[in-house]
Amino acid sequence: MIVLFTDFGLAGPYTGQVTAVLHQRAPEIPVIPLFADAPTEQPKPSSYLLAAYGAWFPAGTVLLCVVDPGVGSERRAVVIEAEGRIYVGPDNGLFDIVMRRASDPRLWEIIWHPGPLSPSFHGRDLFAPVAARLALGAPIAELAQPAADESGERGWPDDLAEIVYIDHYGNAMTGLRGALLTPETRLVAAGRQLALAATFSAVPRGEAFWYINSNGLAEIAVNGGRAAPTLGLEIGSKIRIEA
Amino acid sequence: MIVLFTDFGLAGPYTGQVTAVLHQRAPEIPVIPLFADAPTEQPKPSSYLLAAYGAWFPAGTVLLCVVDPGVGSERRAVVIEAEGRIYVGPDNGLFDIVMRRASDPRLWEIIWHPGPLSPSFHGRDLFAPVAARLALGAPIAELAQPAADESGERGWPDDLAEIVYIDHYGNAMTGLRGALLTPETRLVAAGRQLALAATFSAVPRGEAFWYINSNGLAEIAVNGGRAAPTLGLEIGSKIRIEA
Amino acid sequence: MIVLFTDFGLAGPYTGQVTAVLHQRAPEIPVIPLFADAPTEQPKPSSYLLAAYGAWFPAGTVLLCVVDPGVGSERRAVVIEAEGRIYVGPDNGLFDIVMRRASDPRLWEIIWHPGPLSPSFHGRDLFAPVAARLALGAPIAELAQPAADESGERGWPDDLAEIVYIDHYGNAMTGLRGALLTPETRLVAAGRQLALAATFSAVPRGEAFWYINSNGLAEIAVNGGRAAPTLGLEIGSKIRIEA
Repeated sequence: MIVLFTDFGLAGPYTGQVTAVLHQRAPEIPVIPLFADAPTEQPKPSSYLLAAYGAWFPAGTVLLCVVDPGVGSERRAVVIEAEGRIYVGPDNGLFDIVMRRASDPRLWEIIWHPGPLSPSFHGRDLFAPVAARLALGAPIAELAQPAADESGERGWPDDLAEIVYIDHYGNAMTGLRGALLTPETRLVAAGRQLALAATFSAVPRGEAFWYINSNGLAEIAVNGGRAAPTLGLEIGSKIRIEA
Repeated sequence: MIVLFTDFGLAGPYTGQVTAVLHQRAPEIPVIPLFADAPTEQPKPSSYLLAAYGAWFPAGTVLLCVVDPGVGSERRAVVIEAEGRIYVGPDNGLFDIVMRRASDPRLWEIIWHPGPLSPSFHGRDLFAPVAARLALGAPIAELAQPAADESGERGWPDDLAEIVYIDHYGNAMTGLRGALLTPETRLVAAGRQLALAATFSAVPRGEAFWYINSNGLAEIAVNGGRAAPTLGLEIGSKIRIEA
Repeated sequence: MIVLFTDFGLAGPYTGQVTAVLHQRAPEIPVIPLFADAPTEQPKPSSYLLAAYGAWFPAGTVLLCVVDPGVGSERRAVVIEAEGRIYVGPDNGLFDIVMRRASDPRLWEIIWHPGPLSPSFHGRDLFAPVAARLALGAPIAELAQPAADESGERGWPDDLAEIVYIDHYGNAMTGLRGALLTPETRLVAAGRQLALAATFSAVPRGEAFWYINSNGLAEIAVNGGRAAPTLGLEIGSKIRIEA
């Protein structure tokens, strides 16, 4: 299985072209679009989102991950092995949190070049061909060489007390793992102090709360409403933790 | 074939995770996203939309249907058999109109539990595994037991004189079956009286009208324009029928 | 491979129903949504977009193309052969630029009718069944007959100095092939004179420029920003070329 985690959008040409490359090069492998609306050109919040959602897939999954504002610059193209999964994409911090939470992660720099490379669409021209070959079972060493992990220079925190994603329902995901918070924790967002609830139906309609979402992130919601526009939250909004 | 009828959105993680579960559990079965933008958390308009669009698929189709504002509460999880199709989802009215229009519908309550169940994402953790097994040919009786139809308590009408969906072109679908209206019927929407037209090109550019859409619903449109913003229509807007 | 180029949107029912028809009639053929948000009901800008993006696919690809404001009127339904690819859709100019750039294009009028035809959804009821049969290898002559090319009457230019698409990042594609412009060319858009840059990272953050995108179109962008809302560009905005 090849999973797509990108900021490409679905309707326009980018997801389709990447999917076409994958189908041509690895015809038997299912391609699953997971996120096509990861935080646009923002590797930092995307990194916390990817760590939470990538870990849900079984070992053996190849994740093609493209949030790549530096495409065409000198940033490295990498493959990450972590907990039996393989991640392919740009080396701009997108994989920092995946690596930090893995027991024995490895980073490889891609050296194989499948053909002409457009300066603005490495997702289609480089990362998709690499992902296809890896999904078909090629050893990483045929395409890439071990390289130094430079994530220390970015120094991002283990958990991010910010909004990292607004979903289709208007719920606002934080970069905080819910399991690390206590049931008494209050999250303060946009000046509002919010308590934990187990489910939407546990609070009155119209009330804001936080809960641990189905992939383990602390998420801010309103029962029967849209939390993000109601509270004025967007990607990057800061959250304060009151234990 | 497994058909998805949900309010999940496509770009975010929900449709992707459900699709991943289906591919893992029923690898050979095609998965078709039909609606990912059914009326958000509104089973009533969704029920009329589903009845019109579900009936278009051939017998044997499994429809995975999730518009589920009560996830995590006590609402039942059900399987419906109607006209040779199988519907899987929450028992909150979403299947009322499908059942009412079928000749010998049956309702089953799901009793099989495939594993750990997140309180907020039964679509992924329960309904998708059930749909996968049914699509592979498992008898419903292995997963569910016959149960009482409680739709009478909701008492929804046979047809709904409201807007139930706004499409990508700005056209506004009603919950009214066009075949039950006469060619002389006027639909009054947002204070405007609209006549039937056979096709878009049968009226002057910029003119509003109603027509019977390709799945049988009476739909309000503007030739060369966007009816919903032009007329001020949204999901839930009332329609008056003048015969 | 069957590629979808439409203005249907993805979330609503249209792409899903067309995909269902294709899976039923040509079960083994992958279906790739390329654009579901081609310029709504605008064959002219869509034609330049299709010419740029369709040419990227290998010979043998069947492209199902539906931007069809005249559905239900007398416009012809056609099949185009161009450079080994097969295009299926309405004869309203959508294929004019594809044909003009091909060395020996052929136009056929569809005469096979697969069954009942709704007046408003030929994409599902006619074009998809035709595309499925062609993708399975049926000769075009079984479904269509040679017909006259009437594109001369429209007289559209070889390249279109207008915005033809706004992508998910807010970048604005023109209908101009970048290879026909010189590196010194300035594009004037919304009163702003823009110079060529090789990549996003070659200009300071916040600066607008034009570049040749990964499918050969001249495209207007802002490094780290969203060009279309920033500059006030939309589909149809005129571009002036200063050589």
